[in-house]
Amino acid sequence: MAWFQKTLTLTPSSRGSYLITDTITSSLPELANYRIGLLTLFIQHTSCALSLNENWDSDVRADMSDSLDRIVPEDHKHEGLYRHDAEGKDDMPAHVKSSLVGVTVTVPIVEGRLGLGTWQGLFCFFFSFLHTVHRGSGELEANLLGIFPPFVFFRDLVFGI
Amino acid sequence: MAWFQKTLTLTPSSRGSYLITDTITSSLPELANYRIGLLTLFIQHTSCALSLNENWDSDVRADMSDSLDRIVPEDHKHEGLYRHDAEGKDDMPAHVKSSLVGVTVTVPIVEGRLGLGTWQGLFCFFFSFLHTVHRGSGELEANLLGIFPPFVFFRDLVFGI
Amino acid sequence: MAWFQKTLTLTPSSRGSYLITDTITSSLPELANYRIGLLTLFIQHTSCALSLNENWDSDVRADMSDSLDRIVPEDHKHEGLYRHDAEGKDDMPAHVKSSLVGVTVTVPIVEGRLGLGTWQGLFCFFFSFLHTVHRGSGELEANLLGIFPPFVFFRDLVFGI
Repeated sequence: MAWFQKTLTLTPSSRGSYLITDTITSSLPELANYRIGLLTLFIQHTSCALSLNENWDSDVRADMSDSLDRIVPEDHKHEGLYRHDAEGKDDMPAHVKSSLVGVTVTVPIVEGRLGLGTWQGLFCFFFSFLHTVHRGSGELEANLLGIFPPFVFFRDLVFGI
Repeated sequence: MAWFQKTLTLTPSSRGSYLITDTITSSLPELANYRIGLLTLFIQHTSCALSLNENWDSDVRADMSDSLDRIVPEDHKHEGLYRHDAEGKDDMPAHVKSSLVGVTVTVPIVEGRLGLGTWQGLFCFFFSFLHTVHRGSGELEANLLGIFPPFVFFRDLVFGI
Repeated sequence: MAWFQKTLTLTPSSRGSYLITDTITSSLPELANYRIGLLTLFIQHTSCALSLNENWDSDVRADMSDSLDRIVPEDHKHEGLYRHDAEGKDDMPAHVKSSLVGVTVTVPIVEGRLGLGTWQGLFCFFFSFLHTVHRGSGELEANLLGIFPPFVFFRDLVFGI
């Protein structure tokens, strides 16, 4: 059993939905050591979220942002939708979206690589203008756990170390 | 510490919400070996999702599908809700639902069984007609990690191996 | 590698969104033993949810409840929104919210403490009147896994035990 923990930093330039698969895998060369395992990512912000989604068409990223804006609208008509509004009209909607999508993902590691589907990529969402553009970065805590060689293992066979 | 990884395949016959607790547990007889641990399931598709929900009344499954359809509607009125629409009217809504519900669940293992509440079951959602019915199956990556006998352990007591 | 499993009980007085960071950390003094690791919480109910959200302003908790009520409305106008309605008007919406927000969170442990962002706290949501107020408590299964001293480790360095 091996465990590896590392803090990663994302530096978004604006609000939006980002495909971060390559950023994550290039920041975690240690992935290659794991024959089987799990990668857990946790973003330490309440106006961001992590998810898996379609990795090929950038329209999906724009559609994700728009869809979440429709599901959790800003209070453009001043209807008093939110009490918490000191940090911008998008702040409380950002918190709601963050809880809906979630701030953590757990991805299997298979033979030294992320065990993603063909069209599956890691997404990071930055929902708040103030917290993204003015206050900067998104810190991610990455945990890698699993089995290294030289431990003998057989995928699909039970083993214990 | 023991680790077990296995790929499971679900073969849905149509779009919808499925209760998969029995399918999962019967596909993973290795569960019985774990005194304490975690099961992580990850579905390798972007138009599916995994969740826990009420296991008794099949109406809940139909209501879940309908509710998600209301929250993430298809573009029936041609309002231009989505840019990404080449693979069917339900494709982009499927991606949104997938990110909202999530593609991974982590369930505790207690005394060789899933530590679910009495009325709690594992759900799998297939949101896209094209990807479900035409292109087939849903691959799940299952990871079981935890503690086997002969390691001595006491639940609610700290131990290290 | 060390593993610790414990059942915690929350006793809400009413429906709503609760900040439970202090309850969880004071119920799990074992956290302090872990240099690096993960805490997984799983709530064994289908009308509850767990999440991370903003920990400072109690308005966020009220806004979260209201926002989720708008996203998954009760059937006040008798439009037949839900088939499953025997346990109260808020029961099926509670199940939908539970799947949207999720019943499990995984939080990194860094140097004996939860690796949360400055403004990040653990939230528990109780969505159903009947299941919360009449039928009582919310059982949480907590799993702590990670690395204890005396194992030598270096954060940001790979190690195996």
